[in-house]
Amino acid sequence: MAEQHLFDAGIALDWRDKVAHGRTHAAWRNFIGPFGGLTAAQVMKAILDHPERLGDPVALTVNFAAALEDGDFQVVAKPARTNRSTQHWIVTIEQKGAVVTTATALTAVRRDTWSTKEAHAPQVPRPSEVELQKAPSKVEWIRRYEMRFIEGGISGEWHGGDQGHSRTRLWVRDNPPRPLDFASLTAMSDIFFPRIWLRRATFVPLGTITMTTYFHATEAQLRETGSGYLLGQTQGQGFGAGYFDHTAQLWNEHGTLLATGSQVYYFKE
Amino acid sequence: MAEQHLFDAGIALDWRDKVAHGRTHAAWRNFIGPFGGLTAAQVMKAILDHPERLGDPVALTVNFAAALEDGDFQVVAKPARTNRSTQHWIVTIEQKGAVVTTATALTAVRRDTWSTKEAHAPQVPRPSEVELQKAPSKVEWIRRYEMRFIEGGISGEWHGGDQGHSRTRLWVRDNPPRPLDFASLTAMSDIFFPRIWLRRATFVPLGTITMTTYFHATEAQLRETGSGYLLGQTQGQGFGAGYFDHTAQLWNEHGTLLATGSQVYYFKE
Repeated sequence: MAEQHLFDAGIALDWRDKVAHGRTHAAWRNFIGPFGGLTAAQVMKAILDHPERLGDPVALTVNFAAALEDGDFQVVAKPARTNRSTQHWIVTIEQKGAVVTTATALTAVRRDTWSTKEAHAPQVPRPSEVELQKAPSKVEWIRRYEMRFIEGGISGEWHGGDQGHSRTRLWVRDNPPRPLDFASLTAMSDIFFPRIWLRRATFVPLGTITMTTYFHATEAQLRETGSGYLLGQTQGQGFGAGYFDHTAQLWNEHGTLLATGSQVYYFKE
Repeated sequence: MAEQHLFDAGIALDWRDKVAHGRTHAAWRNFIGPFGGLTAAQVMKAILDHPERLGDPVALTVNFAAALEDGDFQVVAKPARTNRSTQHWIVTIEQKGAVVTTATALTAVRRDTWSTKEAHAPQVPRPSEVELQKAPSKVEWIRRYEMRFIEGGISGEWHGGDQGHSRTRLWVRDNPPRPLDFASLTAMSDIFFPRIWLRRATFVPLGTITMTTYFHATEAQLRETGSGYLLGQTQGQGFGAGYFDHTAQLWNEHGTLLATGSQVYYFKE
């Protein structure tokens, strides 16, 4: 039997009585609790595996209400409204009887229509021309991805000089490579390190408090992407009164827009 | 007694047994059901008026699961998790026993911190230098706002020529003017007409299916804004397989970033 990919091990869920049971995995540890992208992927997987699901993901908002503690948790995914071709979900993750994550999602039967994009993939070097991020990381989950920073990388030097902007562009894929699906695309929509660390070159305590991902990719475009690299781009918009946001885009190597998204982080100081 | 502003009449809620009861208002009719921004503002008002609320709005996601029918509805706002300085909300709007809207929100006690912005207000003419939108509208709610389009206005000519992009910039305020608060800022974060109509200059049936608003404004910045104009900017990112998204920013006349946001619309053809 082939060894299970650590992403699949990380998001594994057992269904009992219409509730999905999961557990934290040591390979996905962040500073406090697991990588938020993995938690978002578990929310997505609970929807994808739900027997009543209609259609493919269009939008997902995940709110991180408290850090997950090491151990078991339940993912409670409920279709709040099912229409002819769309379905609205309310999802909570609960641990020891308390809500630690809330989420809403939209799935829908996608149909061929007119299409275009205005968020164009920037002109950047190919993945093979960009250096692999080799900095040893203090957190385990970083090792689950192959990251090649084109601009706005993690310098690790906290010199406190204002960088003037917080834009990052990188090539990223699972490590080892794994064919892209809606769960891993969800996780990769949270791949960007906190914008304020780049902008200020100063360490401040922080965490993502809400993330929204819009899925532009169809099943056919996921297959076309396969286990290739994604090009990610993100930049902050506003920082103040303890919170900041960013917007983000993810394309495949062919320049197909797969997902767009936004986040709010809290920060201290 | 001073006459009630139509925005306040539109979002009015009566509380009975911890549930907020509302009703649709003829002044806010859209093609089908009410203006989505008003519905989002009602979700926000149910949180703002909730006796257990902690702090000010930071993020709101509203999902439009079905059109509201004319008449009564209930807004059920529940704090899913309350931390020391943050609170996570799950909200549903229900009508005749069915869920028509789902939402999540984050409120938080805001504190003074380092601040900056990267989403800068573009250089544009002052409101008095920009023509008031006078086109007679087929929908009632448009009359509740004073809109002055700087670029990407509603031409009303469906000539079917691809416009190459979908960016709109406008000055907007309540009509008649009303001091800005978190409820009216929520509504105005939905002020933008559908990007696909601008891009394609073609009428296609559509509707917003999810919207997310991030609140950068503090109470002090709302007071500073008063009943002045907001500068709104929006542009589409990806269009295809029946859905498209946009991102948006709202500043006040001083260039203070008040809110950022994003939406997904469904469309046909």
